[in-house]
Amino acid sequence: MRDVAIVGAAITKFGELWQQSLRALAVEASLAALKDAGVDHVDALYVGAMSGGLLVGQEHLGALLADALGQSHIAATRVEGACASGGLALRQGFLAVASGAAEVVLVTGVEKMTDVDGVVATDVLATAADQEWEAMHGVTFPGLYAMMARAHMQRFGTSARALASVAAKNHAHGIKNPQAQFALRLTADDVLSSAMVADPLHALECAPISDGAAALVLVPATKAMQLSKRLVVHIAASAQAGDTMMLAGRASLSELAGVARAGALAYQQAGKGPTDIAVCEVHDCFTIAEIMATEALGFFEPGQAAAAVEAGVTSLGGRLPINTSGGLKARGHPVGATGVAQAVEIVTQLRGEAGARQVAGARVGMTQNMGGTGATAVVHILEVR
Amino acid sequence: MRDVAIVGAAITKFGELWQQSLRALAVEASLAALKDAGVDHVDALYVGAMSGGLLVGQEHLGALLADALGQSHIAATRVEGACASGGLALRQGFLAVASGAAEVVLVTGVEKMTDVDGVVATDVLATAADQEWEAMHGVTFPGLYAMMARAHMQRFGTSARALASVAAKNHAHGIKNPQAQFALRLTADDVLSSAMVADPLHALECAPISDGAAALVLVPATKAMQLSKRLVVHIAASAQAGDTMMLAGRASLSELAGVARAGALAYQQAGKGPTDIAVCEVHDCFTIAEIMATEALGFFEPGQAAAAVEAGVTSLGGRLPINTSGGLKARGHPVGATGVAQAVEIVTQLRGEAGARQVAGARVGMTQNMGGTGATAVVHILEVR
Repeated sequence: MRDVAIVGAAITKFGELWQQSLRALAVEASLAALKDAGVDHVDALYVGAMSGGLLVGQEHLGALLADALGQSHIAATRVEGACASGGLALRQGFLAVASGAAEVVLVTGVEKMTDVDGVVATDVLATAADQEWEAMHGVTFPGLYAMMARAHMQRFGTSARALASVAAKNHAHGIKNPQAQFALRLTADDVLSSAMVADPLHALECAPISDGAAALVLVPATKAMQLSKRLVVHIAASAQAGDTMMLAGRASLSELAGVARAGALAYQQAGKGPTDIAVCEVHDCFTIAEIMATEALGFFEPGQAAAAVEAGVTSLGGRLPINTSGGLKARGHPVGATGVAQAVEIVTQLRGEAGARQVAGARVGMTQNMGGTGATAVVHILEVR
Repeated sequence: MRDVAIVGAAITKFGELWQQSLRALAVEASLAALKDAGVDHVDALYVGAMSGGLLVGQEHLGALLADALGQSHIAATRVEGACASGGLALRQGFLAVASGAAEVVLVTGVEKMTDVDGVVATDVLATAADQEWEAMHGVTFPGLYAMMARAHMQRFGTSARALASVAAKNHAHGIKNPQAQFALRLTADDVLSSAMVADPLHALECAPISDGAAALVLVPATKAMQLSKRLVVHIAASAQAGDTMMLAGRASLSELAGVARAGALAYQQAGKGPTDIAVCEVHDCFTIAEIMATEALGFFEPGQAAAAVEAGVTSLGGRLPINTSGGLKARGHPVGATGVAQAVEIVTQLRGEAGARQVAGARVGMTQNMGGTGATAVVHILEVR
């Protein structure tokens, strides 16, 4: 396989964007990424989106976006894996370049979730769970992650305050991100005094419903230097694994086995380990998800992540800053865009262009994106050499 | 890129399958393909499906199927490009093996369209068109293809009877396919006397709404011989291209430029031309689509395909049998399954196992799958060597 590099990266503002359609958001991010890369054509396009059908009545988003970009002749493919759709699109784009099938690939993640008619976003998100064995019985994602949180608390003594600290940290990071949906200062007490959604998870522990898009331009590493004046970011690993669709099928509710598998594969591909990672974006759809993901990725022993968050280890300025973008919690979570947005943040960090939220000297970063309760897990390691 | 071979192929009965859920259909085809290949594990899974969300309220079909197959740990990805979803899934599976990312890949196409609640299948299919510029104004796919048919008639003098002959031929083929949804003998007169759906297209010129699944197992060609006792079918070309999403954006309504582009790429990859193809499955969602596709693929000059159909050139026993399976028209069209089902038919033909519909001595075959009115176009060339 060829070495693959990211030469363009861009993201829209995330939020309730009443003035912009799904198409407009995807185009905005895509054009900005192409401009960033300094290219005016692509061979192939991968679009990550979870549910254009249910949310805005539009499937076939690959062809839609290619056409809107004036590139209707190219190979354009939509990829879906629930909230991991963006990460999967990045991985398919990586494979297209690595295999030699394409030279310049655009990867765009997008979701339009707030301006929808006749559906409730949380019901659409529930189609990422097993409809017949989970959602049909009334449980939606806050309930599923609440069960995981309870199991983690019971097994490791994880406190409600430690969970709330994840949200407080990510909002503190989000204040430094101009694209973030909720750039507001929150203390753990604020989080703990917000409405209980699914015990033990409070409203301010849940990622929001968002509109937004993010995009990347991928080329063979050998071409990257000629093509772009930007610092070249290499994809050192692109790994994917899975877990049972249903929570009920798992040996343990307090760990993310699929994420652990994808992480191990990624470390193996890159020839690196957890201590090599300088900055990481994880899939904090709920506070407990960040705790469990950082344990699955080997940054902390099982049961130790909560204490690390409270000690500031994962804050900006700490040993391993996690979710410098604000994460899904503060930056926002337009589900199909998230996996791509995570990579945009790491590219920005590795280029040294993250401004107020820059992790000094970061040369290796990671993204961890997942669908459902981790049934789809994608991990990328990015690196400047 | 590594040479890739198909070592397993299977298909369910297509039809109104009230007893089987989407999951059950996908599992049935997948297990049969794995059995056919003689393998008991896979590294990765690609699922082609157009709209699990709108049709049965279930997204995240990659993880769902992997779990149902007892392979929840693997990389499982859903791919969507409207009615080309199956062809795109095959192409992504091809890239995964060709790139070296995976050794054994399962590709499953599936759609459950008849047993749905609260939606009308034709409205779901319309999400493959441009919602804001086409579907919102009331046009659905019979109307879009009717406009293409009118343009073709006006430019080339194509007759209504020639279009009807496509349906008659495909039903004649379908009678010889035990998996076909509508194995019934129809004459061109029967077709012409059926209800007019969108002038000039009659009800019996439109592919049906169907449930069904099909699956393939892909491995590196170097492994195929050791792994399988079956005749090895090589993927000589896997090509994809596009066209405008909207019909209104095209230079001509009477040709499929995206299909022509994908076809030309496929011939180039395989080092072959139209006269090398012994048997071909094309995307006859409407009778006019088969006429236009066979012209775009270079089998006939523009405007000449209709006469060829009427002369029996594309019938079993003719020079180039098209849609020996019965095509979308008679075999059925569970949209996400179709692109995979086409490849299952060609594998069956190249193995010499097509029974009453066998094309004698066929060694090279082609599949052509498209989404929308050809905005997504996928062409594969398969070969026994």
